[in-house]
Amino acid sequence: MNPIAQLDPVQLRKKRRTNSTSALKQVVIAGGTHGNERNGVYLAKYFMKNPKLVQRPSFKTVTLLTNPYAAKANTRYVEEDINRCFYLKDLVQPAKSNLERERAHALDKELGPKASMMPKSDFIFDLHNTTAATGVCLMLPPDDKFALEVGAYLADLDPSVRIVLWSNVPDWPMFASMGRSGMTFEVGPASWGCIAPAEFIQSKQLILSGLDYIEAHNQRITQLKRSPSSGQATTYKKIKVFQNMHYVKYPRDDDGELIGMIHPKLQWQDWKELKNGQPLFAMFDGSADRLFDSSKYESGAVYPFFINEAAYYEKDIAFMLARKVSVDVKIPISKSKI
Amino acid sequence: MNPIAQLDPVQLRKKRRTNSTSALKQVVIAGGTHGNERNGVYLAKYFMKNPKLVQRPSFKTVTLLTNPYAAKANTRYVEEDINRCFYLKDLVQPAKSNLERERAHALDKELGPKASMMPKSDFIFDLHNTTAATGVCLMLPPDDKFALEVGAYLADLDPSVRIVLWSNVPDWPMFASMGRSGMTFEVGPASWGCIAPAEFIQSKQLILSGLDYIEAHNQRITQLKRSPSSGQATTYKKIKVFQNMHYVKYPRDDDGELIGMIHPKLQWQDWKELKNGQPLFAMFDGSADRLFDSSKYESGAVYPFFINEAAYYEKDIAFMLARKVSVDVKIPISKSKI
Repeated sequence: MNPIAQLDPVQLRKKRRTNSTSALKQVVIAGGTHGNERNGVYLAKYFMKNPKLVQRPSFKTVTLLTNPYAAKANTRYVEEDINRCFYLKDLVQPAKSNLERERAHALDKELGPKASMMPKSDFIFDLHNTTAATGVCLMLPPDDKFALEVGAYLADLDPSVRIVLWSNVPDWPMFASMGRSGMTFEVGPASWGCIAPAEFIQSKQLILSGLDYIEAHNQRITQLKRSPSSGQATTYKKIKVFQNMHYVKYPRDDDGELIGMIHPKLQWQDWKELKNGQPLFAMFDGSADRLFDSSKYESGAVYPFFINEAAYYEKDIAFMLARKVSVDVKIPISKSKI
Repeated sequence: MNPIAQLDPVQLRKKRRTNSTSALKQVVIAGGTHGNERNGVYLAKYFMKNPKLVQRPSFKTVTLLTNPYAAKANTRYVEEDINRCFYLKDLVQPAKSNLERERAHALDKELGPKASMMPKSDFIFDLHNTTAATGVCLMLPPDDKFALEVGAYLADLDPSVRIVLWSNVPDWPMFASMGRSGMTFEVGPASWGCIAPAEFIQSKQLILSGLDYIEAHNQRITQLKRSPSSGQATTYKKIKVFQNMHYVKYPRDDDGELIGMIHPKLQWQDWKELKNGQPLFAMFDGSADRLFDSSKYESGAVYPFFINEAAYYEKDIAFMLARKVSVDVKIPISKSKI
């Protein structure tokens, strides 16, 4: 077995994260990780047909469909959600025999591997959509300082952009966790199978700006190597981000069937603080609404998101809950230089 | 061959339509004709678990999932769209060997048949959802005066309800065309796989009111039989409905790939008059918008609907166009009697 695979995933990441002092050689733009999330599918296809748009002088950009079988069938997945196939522990085992596991292993070999000190891909933009009214939210690992830099730059350009930190766990199964650094570029609301047009235009611009940031980062590294005194001082800024914490289940009967739904007053209210006593679920039979009981959680404001995400019915997640936290983000490049 | 099957479908319908002088014995409420249209699936399942809600003294109500395979898989269909399997000409042939054709034939046998002077079902409410912002629209055959009566009653109760006449063609392949009378009960926007909560509550109320109307209709017939002079005079009212006319295709390249999408300014604008020169499509590459050229159509106002309906990408329908027309509708029962 690859000795690296025996490393604790947290330790492995610490050693290999893309950071402020390393240049990026390869960036991945992936659509169709979920085949029915069509903004991502069509944006990736558009970049594949127009590769000059995503080329930058100092690094290679690879654009691909993560799950081409699901994209063709216009379904989330064919046999298994590929965005749950990228745990380190699974990638170091032979692939289970299904389309998505095999594709995940092939991608890991081609663009990773995750079980390495230096995967080939320095950054992954993984394009997703949700049926929830999240707007653009950049979901990234809480320990990924470089992804946070990119995210903070994009949120500075477009103040509607939100940054969300993935759950604080040792490893994640998402495709964007395979490289040295990366993010799930989540956009909603967009129905399965549809292009949400305003969001498509916004996403295209943000991805191109993200590539520009990485190019400026690489130029800065080159400049510093030539002339170590040439760099401007790195500054820090405190920004507010959301930290994913909990999820809330649907009301169901003893057979496991839904007996209620997201309350009409909660629908589309992603990122708006949830107050004690606020209705969460309306019941099919018109009986009393189920209300939010804040005493079940640690004190402090909580913010719902992924409210009524279609793919989460089967995972029994009605919505997720986040807290707002302050994080320090490096600002090594002034916006005027990008 | 069933001699009725040789009848022209228009003539057959004329002879058997549910009308103001016949009582209804069986009403069908169908969900899951498209398995990922979840408002319909869950409303039908809810009625199946609570049959008393949809029982009325004078007729039998049958609630079912039209395509249980697709509902289970949370997809529009498994092998073929079942809502295109109900042409008279197809139902009188042996079923092609696929899940949906076989299911369509079984339903036709159980609840029809369509090739009959008196199918078992007098009325079908077929529950659908669309990703377009249509609100509730009741889509019904242009020659179905009884469905128009029901529709006009529901639109009178809830002024947000729109009535849309199906294309004026000899026969339709939709499930709702199988019985003596019926309508596609279309509700949007609702993403595939999601329950749209406000629309669920509204739909439940409207279906129950539709059943109440049919009960009042039957009571009126019974009353008239007992005492022919007892009926109030039938009045007529002119109402505005939409007549489906055309559809508009997506912009594509020579390989058939999309090169543009619904324009952000057209998205969510269902039922708002389309003006000459208005943008229809935004192009992925940011080149000039494609505009509406009214000179391609007969003169008079046109209204787009089913804008960005997910299932219509594969049919290459970006949206449909309707005209507003005035129709006479019978008002044989005053609202206060229902």
